[in-house]
Amino acid sequence: MTEKSTPSATARVVTYIVRVEFGDCDPACIVWYPNFSRWIDAASRHFFAQCGVPPWHETEKTSGLIGTPVVDIHSRFMKTASYGDTLEIHTSVSEWRDKSFVQHYRVMRGEDLIMECDEVRIFAARREGTSTGIRAIAVPADIRALCC
Amino acid sequence: MTEKSTPSATARVVTYIVRVEFGDCDPACIVWYPNFSRWIDAASRHFFAQCGVPPWHETEKTSGLIGTPVVDIHSRFMKTASYGDTLEIHTSVSEWRDKSFVQHYRVMRGEDLIMECDEVRIFAARREGTSTGIRAIAVPADIRALCC
Amino acid sequence: MTEKSTPSATARVVTYIVRVEFGDCDPACIVWYPNFSRWIDAASRHFFAQCGVPPWHETEKTSGLIGTPVVDIHSRFMKTASYGDTLEIHTSVSEWRDKSFVQHYRVMRGEDLIMECDEVRIFAARREGTSTGIRAIAVPADIRALCC
Amino acid sequence: MTEKSTPSATARVVTYIVRVEFGDCDPACIVWYPNFSRWIDAASRHFFAQCGVPPWHETEKTSGLIGTPVVDIHSRFMKTASYGDTLEIHTSVSEWRDKSFVQHYRVMRGEDLIMECDEVRIFAARREGTSTGIRAIAVPADIRALCC
Repeated sequence: MTEKSTPSATARVVTYIVRVEFGDCDPACIVWYPNFSRWIDAASRHFFAQCGVPPWHETEKTSGLIGTPVVDIHSRFMKTASYGDTLEIHTSVSEWRDKSFVQHYRVMRGEDLIMECDEVRIFAARREGTSTGIRAIAVPADIRALCC
Repeated sequence: MTEKSTPSATARVVTYIVRVEFGDCDPACIVWYPNFSRWIDAASRHFFAQCGVPPWHETEKTSGLIGTPVVDIHSRFMKTASYGDTLEIHTSVSEWRDKSFVQHYRVMRGEDLIMECDEVRIFAARREGTSTGIRAIAVPADIRALCC
Repeated sequence: MTEKSTPSATARVVTYIVRVEFGDCDPACIVWYPNFSRWIDAASRHFFAQCGVPPWHETEKTSGLIGTPVVDIHSRFMKTASYGDTLEIHTSVSEWRDKSFVQHYRVMRGEDLIMECDEVRIFAARREGTSTGIRAIAVPADIRALCC
Repeated sequence: MTEKSTPSATARVVTYIVRVEFGDCDPACIVWYPNFSRWIDAASRHFFAQCGVPPWHETEKTSGLIGTPVVDIHSRFMKTASYGDTLEIHTSVSEWRDKSFVQHYRVMRGEDLIMECDEVRIFAARREGTSTGIRAIAVPADIRALCC
């Protein structure tokens, strides 16, 4: 369950900046919502990059880790945004589990909360002998240590 | 709350077909998950189109309705997909409320459930005097009647 | 130079069908043009798939081939399209060269030519010892034979 | 013809910064090329915004102008890019015509030229009585004056 995830007061928060572009908006002239997933995925990796985690094509060689696919997403939309807006995405890990973690995002325009999202993600490796199969691996202790 | 939405046995189900393309996949060679939002949004409007609802640029002129933006999304991912796959999205309205409705989606590859999603959406009109502001309107009775 | 590429009368033509969706359109309510690149890339691979060429993650294992990146694109836009439209993309190879080929696309809505595009693409393999570097390889004779 | 467009030594150049994200890359782990169109379209409007041109939803009310759709694109790709890269797009108007203009883009990663693009664009207004039709209008003198 991802709801009511409350980042602890001490969780590290990393900010990612988004400029909303004309092409991000639909005929109603508001952000077409799949773009929020795109920005949140970028904010997720930006969080790890800021914590010192290398790109996945490097971890794939060293430990087999190819990324952090989502298994559960819960998003709530409060206000719309349009092109010309600058958004800040505040990202933190609100919970670490054995084989997954919860990442929490708040998308702000100044003081306005535009949308909020909780994602459960796993650390994934390639399933042996396949090109497109993946499997969950235990949360790498070194990565968890970097992110605190 | 969108969880455990169970479409009634009699709810209309409309199917939307997706071919997964190379460019829909990320460096892990699996569908990059924001694409599921893209396909689900297309499945949402396809549902209304199949029920006989005109495009939003026509309803905007007749009734002011400009679309059905999401306010809450809950998605669960069970299996990955990759390019070459053909997916079926089974869409239904699992609940009608006064000013919103819940749309339920099951994304299948043959017998395999790939992901599942519940979205709360509103019917929206332009907020007067603005180019990018929207406001919720009551669920239009004629549209609800078409969708049953 | 890709201009005035004229597919020979006998070149194989493969058709790819596109439904234009709400989210493919911008605030002007017409297709946001980068989506044409998305569809054309899908039409390019669809051409090879219809000719019997396996997915790139399989050719990577057998021959090292990881895809057909573009090196030159020339696009001309004649008419706009919007959501609800169904488009046909007619794809052919108008020229084979030693290390590249020209793919020609005509995007039609019924009898109307919406846009037209010529792309020079190469066959690419991974540059040794890198995760993100690529190099051009000679046009594989077996693939060229399949496509005629 | 857009080729060999050479910005005059005195043309105004505006720079737009792009961070390449994981989701911008395909299974070959390089930027999936339609994303360059997305960034170039953002760079195009960024150019006008930096010159003081208001958003299109404002110009639509004052002068009917709804945007600058492309009619011809010519792109050349020199090097690949991948996630983690920061790109600079240098944008200028290389030619003003009566009813169109040529915008020139150079996408750089440090000293490396990644790709280069020339686009012929028009200024467009809504075709009367339609929701999705557009027509070319004369290049607005005030906008042209702002961009020099």
